[in-house]
Amino acid sequence: MSGRLAFPEFAPGSVWLVGAGPGDPGLLTLHAAHALERADVILHDALVAPEILALAGPGAACEPVGKRAGRAGTAQLRINQRLIELARAGRRVVRLKGGDPFVFGRGGEEALALAAAGVPFRVVPGITSGIGGLAAAGIPLTHRMLAPSAALVTGHGAGSGAPPDLDWAALARGARTIVLYMARDRLGAIAQALLAAGRAPDEPVALLADATTARQRAVRTTLGEAAGAAGQIAPGAPTLVVIGPVVALGDVLGATQQAGPARVLAAPRAAAVQGGAP
Amino acid sequence: MSGRLAFPEFAPGSVWLVGAGPGDPGLLTLHAAHALERADVILHDALVAPEILALAGPGAACEPVGKRAGRAGTAQLRINQRLIELARAGRRVVRLKGGDPFVFGRGGEEALALAAAGVPFRVVPGITSGIGGLAAAGIPLTHRMLAPSAALVTGHGAGSGAPPDLDWAALARGARTIVLYMARDRLGAIAQALLAAGRAPDEPVALLADATTARQRAVRTTLGEAAGAAGQIAPGAPTLVVIGPVVALGDVLGATQQAGPARVLAAPRAAAVQGGAP
Repeated sequence: MSGRLAFPEFAPGSVWLVGAGPGDPGLLTLHAAHALERADVILHDALVAPEILALAGPGAACEPVGKRAGRAGTAQLRINQRLIELARAGRRVVRLKGGDPFVFGRGGEEALALAAAGVPFRVVPGITSGIGGLAAAGIPLTHRMLAPSAALVTGHGAGSGAPPDLDWAALARGARTIVLYMARDRLGAIAQALLAAGRAPDEPVALLADATTARQRAVRTTLGEAAGAAGQIAPGAPTLVVIGPVVALGDVLGATQQAGPARVLAAPRAAAVQGGAP
Repeated sequence: MSGRLAFPEFAPGSVWLVGAGPGDPGLLTLHAAHALERADVILHDALVAPEILALAGPGAACEPVGKRAGRAGTAQLRINQRLIELARAGRRVVRLKGGDPFVFGRGGEEALALAAAGVPFRVVPGITSGIGGLAAAGIPLTHRMLAPSAALVTGHGAGSGAPPDLDWAALARGARTIVLYMARDRLGAIAQALLAAGRAPDEPVALLADATTARQRAVRTTLGEAAGAAGQIAPGAPTLVVIGPVVALGDVLGATQQAGPARVLAAPRAAAVQGGAP
């Protein structure tokens, strides 16, 4: 089908910040798949699945970056610098990020660095796991009457408490559905803050690990018991937490809907790997 | 590239609820493009662009449904019934919805109806305009330090006031970025509610019409002046409102990033149209 579309030019010397979606390669956009085919270099988060990297063109070099790739992590400033360096060397550069580049992906920082350096860039959105991952579990982010508002929130931060730069009591009252990214380790404190603001202990909660992949795992619990349930998810697995009445719809829809990711037919390509362990 | 993927079977007698994304055909997912190629019948919202319908297989019949298709509108219950009827007749049915089926798309209601009728179904997520449409204007939904939380909210409802089933004061305090869907006609009342809860009159606001398409239009304003700015958008154009400090990043990134949708090469197909005016 993509043969019937003309894509905008991916020019040498430019950087495309591309969302890889939640894991299932079938959830790449046509723009993203096209960019992977054309890229000279792909700088990818360590969490991007090999199945997705397998869709890169045969000439593309893959460079893993991000916190899990190296021992001490590759600092954001070094990633920005590498993107600029590769673009100035005339390469077509894809910066491939899990989910969407502009949803808790630091894509805004990378785009600002490229703009400041005068490097041409484009943002290619991806399916964020906070929407597409929920769908794979049969959970609608919003639903008429049940949830006219939804909040996407990062649980990431220093220390073990609920991140202090958020007004959790206001969130509890303002958003019927709350989706927490990267919150597994702080779930106890966050649940406490939401309960203190009046959310009910028996409110439905789902923990979704490796959503949309063949390894997908869902744990169904309640707000009062969510902290204990986090132990059922393997540490390190990318995990979403969904809080709200829509989770109960997943009890029906998750059990009945057809699911499963697209599978890669080609053997994973022997990618030229530079810059760190894969 | 999609030739290197094996897609899950789209079986006769089943319904796929497919997100068409915000408008640019290049933002379809590979699953969605595959489903459009295989479908026997496509029931689509009136707002889905002809460029996207052009990617349907040659044998697919397209049926426009939704509020803009008929004079009095096709009621949701009739759409549910039609999906069930077509599936029971052994067709491969795509229900194609703008954006994501589970984000203000009533996909949850359709999925529940299919589950209750015992019709096999699958939800294929799409890029929601509240994320992908923002990206096309260079606006990140979230940004480190500036916006650790974002709310997606419908401004749709009865009457001309801010929809009363939402706690607007709590939303104002809990969500750094607020994205309003379908709020053009209620923007004055919603802005008043947010200002009364302490959001600043000079807070940046963007109105985005027809985002990601060649017709894309952005109006930059402030919370204090947002109601007046709504008049600059043609009535009827699908419009998002973005409120928050991230909008100021769009002043830089929207002006510098490369943009533009994928273009359809094939002439629009002569689709077999049933069930209403296109």
